[in-house]
Amino acid sequence: MTKIKAFAAQDAESTLGPWNLERRAPGPKDIQIEILYCGVCHSDLHQIRNEWGNSIFPMVPGHEIVGRISKIGSEVKKFKVGELAGVGCLVDSCRKCENCKEGLEQYCLNGSSPTYNGLEQDKKTPTYGGYSKMIVADQDFVLQISDKLPLQNVAPLLCAGITTYSPLRHWNVGKGHKLAVLGLGGLGHMAVKFGVSFGAEVSMLSSSPSKKDDARKLGAHKFVLTSDPEQLKAVQGSFDFIIDTVSAPHDYNEYLGLLRTNGVLVCVGAPPAPAQIYAFNLIGGRKSIAGSLIGGLPETQEMLNYCADHKIVSDVELIDIQDIHRAYDRMLKGDVKYRFVIDIATL
Amino acid sequence: MTKIKAFAAQDAESTLGPWNLERRAPGPKDIQIEILYCGVCHSDLHQIRNEWGNSIFPMVPGHEIVGRISKIGSEVKKFKVGELAGVGCLVDSCRKCENCKEGLEQYCLNGSSPTYNGLEQDKKTPTYGGYSKMIVADQDFVLQISDKLPLQNVAPLLCAGITTYSPLRHWNVGKGHKLAVLGLGGLGHMAVKFGVSFGAEVSMLSSSPSKKDDARKLGAHKFVLTSDPEQLKAVQGSFDFIIDTVSAPHDYNEYLGLLRTNGVLVCVGAPPAPAQIYAFNLIGGRKSIAGSLIGGLPETQEMLNYCADHKIVSDVELIDIQDIHRAYDRMLKGDVKYRFVIDIATL
Repeated sequence: MTKIKAFAAQDAESTLGPWNLERRAPGPKDIQIEILYCGVCHSDLHQIRNEWGNSIFPMVPGHEIVGRISKIGSEVKKFKVGELAGVGCLVDSCRKCENCKEGLEQYCLNGSSPTYNGLEQDKKTPTYGGYSKMIVADQDFVLQISDKLPLQNVAPLLCAGITTYSPLRHWNVGKGHKLAVLGLGGLGHMAVKFGVSFGAEVSMLSSSPSKKDDARKLGAHKFVLTSDPEQLKAVQGSFDFIIDTVSAPHDYNEYLGLLRTNGVLVCVGAPPAPAQIYAFNLIGGRKSIAGSLIGGLPETQEMLNYCADHKIVSDVELIDIQDIHRAYDRMLKGDVKYRFVIDIATL
Repeated sequence: MTKIKAFAAQDAESTLGPWNLERRAPGPKDIQIEILYCGVCHSDLHQIRNEWGNSIFPMVPGHEIVGRISKIGSEVKKFKVGELAGVGCLVDSCRKCENCKEGLEQYCLNGSSPTYNGLEQDKKTPTYGGYSKMIVADQDFVLQISDKLPLQNVAPLLCAGITTYSPLRHWNVGKGHKLAVLGLGGLGHMAVKFGVSFGAEVSMLSSSPSKKDDARKLGAHKFVLTSDPEQLKAVQGSFDFIIDTVSAPHDYNEYLGLLRTNGVLVCVGAPPAPAQIYAFNLIGGRKSIAGSLIGGLPETQEMLNYCADHKIVSDVELIDIQDIHRAYDRMLKGDVKYRFVIDIATL
């Protein structure tokens, strides 16, 4: 075991602070990564506050992890010491169920191991995330990271990136499609970038007029101010696909009305309260409301490779770890363009 | 114009009774059909009671119409006098929008003309349905009916049949799939028959133990008593597709839990109140909840041909039109196997 520095929440009420964490010595198939940057995801805040009711304390958040490999196990072939590497939302899964076999580890039928606030596959050992100096993970759950892209901007691809890439690929969104992105935050800005890159006509839907210029800068072709009934009316029945990144409660029926026949609204944000959906709004145009969860390991690597090839990264604000609570406060207000990333050197 | 006998509701409070209806003389492209049988759909009752808030009175319900052609317009080529013919839920649509051009007239972007409680494409003339002696409709909205099947059992195919056939075809349900059918009524019993015919493993989900034998007789391979938590638990995460025919309020989340990864729950019944859906229940397995509305004219004809080829019909109880209110009462209690059909000779 190695003692390393981390930032942890001791319970749902306290603030994050320094904590010494023990990491296992790398086994034959493990990779040890010295963490350089870790993205700040909205789910970090949900979980340290136990807003989903499943928190394990002490908790070291962080599942957008990039760094450099410092040790590898004796059986590791895919990675070398000194290379860049990443860890996303998962550090293990059962590897035996039909979903794991298909590379859909995020839907592991026996329960995957989240990178933090979860348990290893022994179902006993808690997992700790990337607000820490170092992580040890099985090679099959470690991602190869290109050295062609600015590393701090790559970190958020591990969650915000794959969470939007995966549904766009699953539903084959591309040329000839009209894609709307609801909400311009960490996930939304990546959805715009991927949608544009895949050839779709991308509209940003936002209730805030100030996002119009931002959306255009990210490549969005159109902007719809959702607080303006006229603008909403003008796009009724027009989108093939809406990617809904909003995790605050909102009226799904309104957005179902913006879909064309056979259109799909995909939720990647999960409001805590149930959505009230009129079946008529689905029936009237053979519409669907669907959900999508991050992505499996093969698709996450595919996404990272795609980003390296197409020079796609997240827009980030680099912070010192001591500023994490100020960052959370700003994140709650939507005041970040578009993802905070912790410089782990400050830990 | 021709005066014909019909049964109509004069307002939302009154019972149905005799009414004389005027039908147009057939134009060059019209077909005049002497109605022999008309199915009784749950939506008939919703609409005569104005439960959807859009009722036009006097109202002559009925959109599962079969009969014999008595006149054809001068330009009609597809039909001959003396042949059997049917009219389903639509008598016209704009025919110009992209959906109409694709044969998806049920999703006409300019508003289709429902067979009753609607307006013709002049957006002025009310339409009157099949609780009447005769109907005149454009040849493009008239279906060819095989003389190989018992005619009274064919009538419900025009709504209950196509409403379940269409989503099963759209989502390619067939061999290797596990299909669950929720609710064993007019729609549900057709969903079972089609699902079995398409090669799926079909499970009937019902809260009523008495439906077990019925489901088996219809061909269902399995039965799940939804009021028994143990039986529900045993089928968690097991279905590729659920066709939900229930129009009473019910908990969709419970049924989303029965879907496999990538599973789809399709609503063909529309409860008046919104469904409360937790986004997590969709996200957790890339699941969808979708809707589907009847079917277009080409697919309705395809379904009728399929039924003739595969000897599929609806199980019906033939009633005199004077017994319509007793039939509605029994329908509300689910006491019908599985569709009432009016013998129009009794009118």
